[in-house]
Amino acid sequence: MWFVSDNTSPAAPEVMAAVLRANQGHVASYGAEAAMGRVTERLREIFEAPDAAVYLAPTGTAANALALACLCPPWATIYCHRTAHVEEDECGAPEFYTGGAKLTLVDGPHGRIAPESLETAFGFAARAGVHNVQRGPLTLTNATEAGTVYRPEDVARLAAMARRHGLPVHMDGARLANALVSLGCTPAELTWRAGVDVLSFGGTKNGCMGVEAVILFEPARAWEFELRRKRGGHLFSKHRYLSAQMEGYLADGLWRALATQANARAQQLARGLAALPGARLVHPTEANAVFAAWPRAGHRAVRAAGAQYYLWPGHQSLDGPDDEPLSARLVCNWSTTEGDVEAFLQALGAGRPAAEAVRARG
Amino acid sequence: MWFVSDNTSPAAPEVMAAVLRANQGHVASYGAEAAMGRVTERLREIFEAPDAAVYLAPTGTAANALALACLCPPWATIYCHRTAHVEEDECGAPEFYTGGAKLTLVDGPHGRIAPESLETAFGFAARAGVHNVQRGPLTLTNATEAGTVYRPEDVARLAAMARRHGLPVHMDGARLANALVSLGCTPAELTWRAGVDVLSFGGTKNGCMGVEAVILFEPARAWEFELRRKRGGHLFSKHRYLSAQMEGYLADGLWRALATQANARAQQLARGLAALPGARLVHPTEANAVFAAWPRAGHRAVRAAGAQYYLWPGHQSLDGPDDEPLSARLVCNWSTTEGDVEAFLQALGAGRPAAEAVRARG
Amino acid sequence: MWFVSDNTSPAAPEVMAAVLRANQGHVASYGAEAAMGRVTERLREIFEAPDAAVYLAPTGTAANALALACLCPPWATIYCHRTAHVEEDECGAPEFYTGGAKLTLVDGPHGRIAPESLETAFGFAARAGVHNVQRGPLTLTNATEAGTVYRPEDVARLAAMARRHGLPVHMDGARLANALVSLGCTPAELTWRAGVDVLSFGGTKNGCMGVEAVILFEPARAWEFELRRKRGGHLFSKHRYLSAQMEGYLADGLWRALATQANARAQQLARGLAALPGARLVHPTEANAVFAAWPRAGHRAVRAAGAQYYLWPGHQSLDGPDDEPLSARLVCNWSTTEGDVEAFLQALGAGRPAAEAVRARG
Amino acid sequence: MWFVSDNTSPAAPEVMAAVLRANQGHVASYGAEAAMGRVTERLREIFEAPDAAVYLAPTGTAANALALACLCPPWATIYCHRTAHVEEDECGAPEFYTGGAKLTLVDGPHGRIAPESLETAFGFAARAGVHNVQRGPLTLTNATEAGTVYRPEDVARLAAMARRHGLPVHMDGARLANALVSLGCTPAELTWRAGVDVLSFGGTKNGCMGVEAVILFEPARAWEFELRRKRGGHLFSKHRYLSAQMEGYLADGLWRALATQANARAQQLARGLAALPGARLVHPTEANAVFAAWPRAGHRAVRAAGAQYYLWPGHQSLDGPDDEPLSARLVCNWSTTEGDVEAFLQALGAGRPAAEAVRARG
Repeated sequence: MWFVSDNTSPAAPEVMAAVLRANQGHVASYGAEAAMGRVTERLREIFEAPDAAVYLAPTGTAANALALACLCPPWATIYCHRTAHVEEDECGAPEFYTGGAKLTLVDGPHGRIAPESLETAFGFAARAGVHNVQRGPLTLTNATEAGTVYRPEDVARLAAMARRHGLPVHMDGARLANALVSLGCTPAELTWRAGVDVLSFGGTKNGCMGVEAVILFEPARAWEFELRRKRGGHLFSKHRYLSAQMEGYLADGLWRALATQANARAQQLARGLAALPGARLVHPTEANAVFAAWPRAGHRAVRAAGAQYYLWPGHQSLDGPDDEPLSARLVCNWSTTEGDVEAFLQALGAGRPAAEAVRARG
Repeated sequence: MWFVSDNTSPAAPEVMAAVLRANQGHVASYGAEAAMGRVTERLREIFEAPDAAVYLAPTGTAANALALACLCPPWATIYCHRTAHVEEDECGAPEFYTGGAKLTLVDGPHGRIAPESLETAFGFAARAGVHNVQRGPLTLTNATEAGTVYRPEDVARLAAMARRHGLPVHMDGARLANALVSLGCTPAELTWRAGVDVLSFGGTKNGCMGVEAVILFEPARAWEFELRRKRGGHLFSKHRYLSAQMEGYLADGLWRALATQANARAQQLARGLAALPGARLVHPTEANAVFAAWPRAGHRAVRAAGAQYYLWPGHQSLDGPDDEPLSARLVCNWSTTEGDVEAFLQALGAGRPAAEAVRARG
Repeated sequence: MWFVSDNTSPAAPEVMAAVLRANQGHVASYGAEAAMGRVTERLREIFEAPDAAVYLAPTGTAANALALACLCPPWATIYCHRTAHVEEDECGAPEFYTGGAKLTLVDGPHGRIAPESLETAFGFAARAGVHNVQRGPLTLTNATEAGTVYRPEDVARLAAMARRHGLPVHMDGARLANALVSLGCTPAELTWRAGVDVLSFGGTKNGCMGVEAVILFEPARAWEFELRRKRGGHLFSKHRYLSAQMEGYLADGLWRALATQANARAQQLARGLAALPGARLVHPTEANAVFAAWPRAGHRAVRAAGAQYYLWPGHQSLDGPDDEPLSARLVCNWSTTEGDVEAFLQALGAGRPAAEAVRARG
Repeated sequence: MWFVSDNTSPAAPEVMAAVLRANQGHVASYGAEAAMGRVTERLREIFEAPDAAVYLAPTGTAANALALACLCPPWATIYCHRTAHVEEDECGAPEFYTGGAKLTLVDGPHGRIAPESLETAFGFAARAGVHNVQRGPLTLTNATEAGTVYRPEDVARLAAMARRHGLPVHMDGARLANALVSLGCTPAELTWRAGVDVLSFGGTKNGCMGVEAVILFEPARAWEFELRRKRGGHLFSKHRYLSAQMEGYLADGLWRALATQANARAQQLARGLAALPGARLVHPTEANAVFAAWPRAGHRAVRAAGAQYYLWPGHQSLDGPDDEPLSARLVCNWSTTEGDVEAFLQALGAGRPAAEAVRARG
């Protein structure tokens, strides 16, 4: 019953098999191996972007920070949602890689930037001239940190606002696969066709060991990206182990299949929670994470049964009145089973009188 | 016949097996997995350093740059050999991670910093006051970029010079295993007992997929290291795949066994080349790399036979008179076989009248 | 009728006289001139801080950024008011000088950080661990950007909150003289006795050409400050022209006298505006800047009469209905005369039927 | 008898007069004052560069570092002479402002980069690819740190070499006036016509209090320069005091007249030293600094008489045998008088038997 994060999960067997296959003999290093050529071609096909430059990085933080550094001079500000990973969970990596850019925090419900809030944020910079930091890239996280998704039209609307100010658009797609299978649209529709210039395309959270692709749909800054990646210590010498993971991940639609599984488990969990008296969903469940609130007694019950997850936000405490609701984040992943979800819901139900209702509908 | 670099080699089967074993179920992320605790304990034992702080990073460049950033303020200079990896092959990663420190290039034969050159370099900074960059850490590469090693007494002498100026000492041990088995001394003798404060301990070049340990023998800056690693995008979420590699690498002395193999092949190669009329060793062969020069015709012959290696320095050309000597770097690794070396020497010998002599002695 | 900023004003005659006196013969450079010794002693006396380290910098942005860089590692965040100069008017200088730190914006009425907002901001970082930027210094602007002041007890309360988290405190005193004469307290009471570690003590806005002192009450980081200043290009070779300004500024209480004049003009202006039907003060007038709102027709009238000032915030427009109130910032300085203020109030009064009332009371 | 540096000298009376004239009433700040417009026009005329962007900065270090940051990405290296101010006397300011670029030290006699050494330096980077820092700007100091000058054809030759690699050229003209009057060429001939893209044009060392112009002959990066200057804390609010200095400095050819005086005194000094038995010039005297060596006893004699100057290099000692020659740097400036030089030579001559000969020819 691990719902702590998608990064506590193992790698998918197909990915590991690809890594094992790659472990044969001598091959060129630093991305010059043949497999990287195949990965590039495959991603260009998937994204219908024949000219895109494609690179691999080992972590999502590296992918985001390197991508943003190519889009944002040191004297500009990055527009992101207040809860974005680049703001909250990267210990200032964007600031470091850009050489001291700012992040401007934009609000919006359910983890999505609200257009009117973005317009206000853009407008604020209008009066600044040389004395203030300049406007820089917009970055959108899809799926969001709240387990919701931006639809292609949402992305397009926000990207068009950025475009009007001449600003580039980055997408943090650490969970892009989850967003795509949720929306049923094509990768191109959700990214460059909607105005995204550079994409961090995640693998780690969805069944790889540690690999993210960075896709520059307009490759003018490709060489800059390569230099920044090397200088950041993110160019693997035995790069074959990154390309093998990504090749295995992309083969036969594995990446979609894994995301589909994870999303299905989140739906199962959300349905179960929604049916539980006293519980409610905090955000719509649109990808692989469920945000819900239920009474403290229920939290104690599932934890006693071995469930692992974060109270969200983190300052809440398990100490307190039984019936006070606490909110939580429950993240499903490709390896979460129906049984895991069922066990969680049972433990939660057993902790309170209305348990039967939950089990019946779970 | 791959002698291009140790990083074109595959990972050792034992390392891959450890990675596979680690790919089971959910575990804590970001280094909180149990395996990382075991790695820390194992490295403390190996280095006889029970208080050392131990971290993993995915690349040698990351390990070096993060370590040096903890030792060097932005307004100081790092003393390194003119041919050091941090100077020549990291695209300015130390400058990036330190926030703009300098590197002061120190000379010395065969890739080793000469004490008198270091004293001159230290002395130069004496007059500077506030107008010049300040003295910063000394970094020693062991085994060196020239395939030689510093003995414990060499390290101790240079480290004592640094210590007299209050300067810390870093060791780039991307090939420390090769140096250790060459010298027959203990890890402690070659590092902290000789005055090394922080060590980059390599795994990647010697049989891993991509993992280096950074060992802070004095752990005062451990938390700073953790923050810098995160901020640099080098903290793996699925950290288990780093700790599994390192655990497999350290188990049953594998790391020593692999380095012993690589060094033995380098000795085989050096002996064969030294015996070849017209060839000569450019540097003593003390670890896993051979630097030698022989006539251009011989280079053409081995290349025709499929040998892969770098002319060193790189500006030399295969076009030119047959008998002009060109120098080359030939790197052996754990997977290099006796047959590989034999085939190389045969191809080289066959390319010239005196081939028999080579084969006879190879 | 210049109320645009205190930095449109000339230097005081006494300051210029001191500069002229300093322009004699050869003297040591880079702060080694005798005058700098006298400045240091004088500031130590004024602040009752015999051990303080004292430096000069040419601009307020330099003083702030250099001071904060000594207090804030790259992976931390600076707590400042949402409208602070370091956030809004320095084009990211703190981010640049710290090597990529963040600024956390704290709210509070009338330009002053509210204790409860600061506690919330500190609390937010509690859960972060290695994934988020760490807590860094608190910086307080006194007088504030809203023309108000922090009293010694206000500073002490906020500084104590920082101290509980082990965080240092910086004060941006670009207008400290205005705050001091407004409060009638001693320099020590408003700074180090209240918990301030490092102070930017302004001269430029209050009658100098361009000089600010940075006072490190605890001098442990003095050498670091010197290196950062040099490296930032702020160490003047002909430093005598900075020390002469500061010496002239401090002599015979000139700095207090100039601030007293500026504050008196602001009070005159505030009284006049407060008496004007349809006008209101937006913030209390506690230093040398008046924030007030009055109908657009009045703005048109004073501008036609030659008044110079900013609408504040800047996105307001002079185009629109006559009776809609627009808010403005009016900054007085040492050279503002009673006649300037009178003329402004007259022009404003003449622009509307109730002009007589204004003139009568101005 | 101050020959320590040109920065120990006072400002010229005409420059101070201009500053005093500027100290009248309110004017726009941050470079929007009318005087800055006049300075820009005047420098465009002087340099025959009607499109050039012109900015002022308070120090030479700021001017150089800001200029180089506009020409050099963080992952590149700046080619400079081994003794350049940017390398030796700026505490890493170029590294700081560029975000971590390198400096590649190029040799050449008498402070001038030798073309063959530059070609070697350029060639070294050829093999690097993504692993090494990339080639960046060439910076030439004119007059050099050795008191010599580059002629227009010298600049053109080196700049053409840079141009062949697509690299921009910066000139550190902290003493450009001295070089120009020495060469008798036009400012255009020595700068943009010879291939210089960006110039630091010094005022401080030649009679100003503290002001340097940065001239971007190709203004494409002008806005970037403005942002970097602000962010670096170098945009003066009361900018009028920078523009007034520069306006006074440029009026009626003052800048040339001051440099002519300084150079004449250096020639007087060089002639006197050259005539002194046992003394010799270390570098040709082509601008306002004399580098000469003479016996230690002579050094003691002139110091006893009150002469101030640096032994150069600095590690030499006044303690030792009387007849051992020590080398020194003697810098003349606009305010050095014939009498100062005469007194120095007399003191030197009086310290040794051959004093008469010196006095006779001085």
